[in-house]
Amino acid sequence: MSRILYDLAGADPARRFSPFCWRIRMALAHKGLPVETIPWRFTEKEKIAFSGQGLVPVLVDHGHVLHESWDIACWLEARYPDRPSLFGGPAGQAATRFLNSWADSALHPWIARLVVRDILDVIRQEDKGYFRESREKRFGTTLEEWVAERDRLVVEFRKALQPVRLTLRAQPWLAGAAPGYADYIVFGAFQWARCTSPFRLLEEGDPVFAWRARVMELFGGLARDALGYEV
Amino acid sequence: MSRILYDLAGADPARRFSPFCWRIRMALAHKGLPVETIPWRFTEKEKIAFSGQGLVPVLVDHGHVLHESWDIACWLEARYPDRPSLFGGPAGQAATRFLNSWADSALHPWIARLVVRDILDVIRQEDKGYFRESREKRFGTTLEEWVAERDRLVVEFRKALQPVRLTLRAQPWLAGAAPGYADYIVFGAFQWARCTSPFRLLEEGDPVFAWRARVMELFGGLARDALGYEV
Repeated sequence: MSRILYDLAGADPARRFSPFCWRIRMALAHKGLPVETIPWRFTEKEKIAFSGQGLVPVLVDHGHVLHESWDIACWLEARYPDRPSLFGGPAGQAATRFLNSWADSALHPWIARLVVRDILDVIRQEDKGYFRESREKRFGTTLEEWVAERDRLVVEFRKALQPVRLTLRAQPWLAGAAPGYADYIVFGAFQWARCTSPFRLLEEGDPVFAWRARVMELFGGLARDALGYEV
Repeated sequence: MSRILYDLAGADPARRFSPFCWRIRMALAHKGLPVETIPWRFTEKEKIAFSGQGLVPVLVDHGHVLHESWDIACWLEARYPDRPSLFGGPAGQAATRFLNSWADSALHPWIARLVVRDILDVIRQEDKGYFRESREKRFGTTLEEWVAERDRLVVEFRKALQPVRLTLRAQPWLAGAAPGYADYIVFGAFQWARCTSPFRLLEEGDPVFAWRARVMELFGGLARDALGYEV
């Protein structure tokens, strides 16, 4: 296959849990573009060194080497204009940039706060040292301390989802009348949690829960069938 | 004039400080639609009772009575399609809905936390009782207590602006290559503060500060020239 995605995996190669890789998995499925995914682990920097940096997703599309999920999505949109649009045009793309920024700077830190310790349990033994050290340096505390108050914090987290909730009260998808990249951005964060942690982020009565369930069913249940927890 | 906007005002009728009204003032200017604004105070519910509710903005456009800033913006976009677009199309409109939800549920509570006590000083004597009572009920504490820690909290507020900052690193306006309703939504919140409080929300080196300055210059300095503080 001439389209390859390096995709963050756990000890079990079927466990794919990067929120950024999930954005691109969903984006490729949205465009109907088949892809071969290669399980990649945190410490395998040399395997993606050809991309000039050390983070996934890395997509190699007919020889084009791409990284950074936002840049990959924009590239796919420009390269495959005849396929279903991810953004619905330049204005949709520009406005989705804000949602992408919100996910990166507000949503992801929240989810890390709730589930990051659990990630340690699903990655390879040889990656655990790197993961613990790099994350503890970032958070300034141990992984255990970082998630210690999660039963209390999850209530605050659910309040922080209010922008998503209000949007979904007004329209069925974050992208509008049909799903689009805006949905995959936010969904990626939930899928990251779902594929690594049994901790329950959402209450069943929450419109965000119902929306997440609908995203999981897209593309023949691509996200639903991924190895993860029933939460 | 056949286009009238009921616009929240302070004791000085020139002081217009509703974030939601500013969204619409800017949207009307964007579309090049002249408007007569009528200063309106919190307790003058009867003056807008014809709209079927008690909040501004209320826009009367050639006999069409409109309220709710988002609904007004969408109506203007649909009613005046030949004028410059606020959203750049349906996908832009849908994606901007998330930004609108974020402003309402995350940005506005932050700004209220920092400046709401100062609003008391700029409204009419006869409105102060209503304002204090309704807001203290909402916040569950006195206005003075609510803003007491603002010198410490403003540091957290600036971090909460990171989605705006990241977006502005990637593109000149929140709406993309040119200003649009996405910008007016966020700007309205800053103008609300600027028109009521001398408290400094933004540091001068912040890209958000530079963006706000650029929005203030739009439409011949419509927002710049409004009665407010130099912050």
